[in-house]
Amino acid sequence: MESYKIIEVKESVFANNDREAERVRQDLKRDKTFLLNLMSSPGSGKTTTLLRTIENLKDDLRIGVMEADVDSDVDAKTVAQAGVRSIQLHTGGMCHLDAGMTEQGLREIGTSDLDLVVLENVGNLVCPAEFDTGAVKNAMILSVPEGHDKPLKYPLIFTVCDALVINKIDVLPYFDFDMEKVVEYAHMRNPKLEIFPISAKTGEGVDAWCDWLRRQVRDWNEAK
Amino acid sequence: MESYKIIEVKESVFANNDREAERVRQDLKRDKTFLLNLMSSPGSGKTTTLLRTIENLKDDLRIGVMEADVDSDVDAKTVAQAGVRSIQLHTGGMCHLDAGMTEQGLREIGTSDLDLVVLENVGNLVCPAEFDTGAVKNAMILSVPEGHDKPLKYPLIFTVCDALVINKIDVLPYFDFDMEKVVEYAHMRNPKLEIFPISAKTGEGVDAWCDWLRRQVRDWNEAK
Repeated sequence: MESYKIIEVKESVFANNDREAERVRQDLKRDKTFLLNLMSSPGSGKTTTLLRTIENLKDDLRIGVMEADVDSDVDAKTVAQAGVRSIQLHTGGMCHLDAGMTEQGLREIGTSDLDLVVLENVGNLVCPAEFDTGAVKNAMILSVPEGHDKPLKYPLIFTVCDALVINKIDVLPYFDFDMEKVVEYAHMRNPKLEIFPISAKTGEGVDAWCDWLRRQVRDWNEAK
Repeated sequence: MESYKIIEVKESVFANNDREAERVRQDLKRDKTFLLNLMSSPGSGKTTTLLRTIENLKDDLRIGVMEADVDSDVDAKTVAQAGVRSIQLHTGGMCHLDAGMTEQGLREIGTSDLDLVVLENVGNLVCPAEFDTGAVKNAMILSVPEGHDKPLKYPLIFTVCDALVINKIDVLPYFDFDMEKVVEYAHMRNPKLEIFPISAKTGEGVDAWCDWLRRQVRDWNEAK
């Protein structure tokens, strides 16, 4: 098990979050590091999906993980056990991360020898969507038990994401979840959204999601 | 089907939310109306639980519902079909309701002829917990697919709630959800928390939850 550190991140002092986010991306470009901002509701399976993703990609990419949480180190502990470098970001009650907070995390984890850093954002479909963290791409997880109407109710997060992972498809038989409808509603918000139905539990569909992510990382770091 | 109105609520102009919340409660006391603030993650089954609750209580109590949402009227439409007075509060992107916003909603729905108003807060485990809405009691729903570790990861909401409804117990066989652990973790945060395992889908456990709520309403309105 890799060790991990807990960082108390402070709300950004930068008035202009968008400008700060651009600066974070420039630094990442220089270090040839891809940052994925992963968002979802609490309990959608972010950490389990992340473990599957690490397992799939770790022979090709040097991966780091930043776990953001209001208060706890449950996830960083789990991820560290998977053998990747990880840190825990405590937001001190804040419901999202901004670019300045993300930068504090990136400085602590150290990006020069990493190809991919995944930021596991605070479990919340509203606030994290409003702040550019400086990530190269945004992805979100929606799980089957949450229902197919979520793109109607939380439009912004579907708009700002590049990829949508639909997790827990292994329990589809036990829920009234309409896969065609969720795809229709999600594309209504964002026609370019790439959608990956998976089961992080059984591994089904994980390859397609990881192939997409691997391609994004290579495109970003191609000069390497 | 009852009709419903959509209200755009504005962030409170009151600097002191706690004082404003006390004022809301005094007005409710005067009107003999009980306000329940119902919180949860997106997709935990708030609306379905509410429909079951309305069905159970509507012969005893005059009920109104305020559906808060970032942007949509999906839930108000559903609740209006159940035949109770309901309004939709649009928060305009805000991730929670404060006492001032709640008061705007109460004024619109009209409390003088209602015994119980349920405020369905924005789906979010972080921000709504930080603001006293003026409700007499707070309740939250955690659903089985979200996992039993949530009291460890989102401590505040478990601390401020009086009742915890654990929904979707009909799918317990398909998830690694430890009922003993969730009760232990939740009581670690709040020893007085009343816990009700239910299935809003099958109706199991709903009676106990509704009996508790009926008792709370009667205690508050006993002078009637």
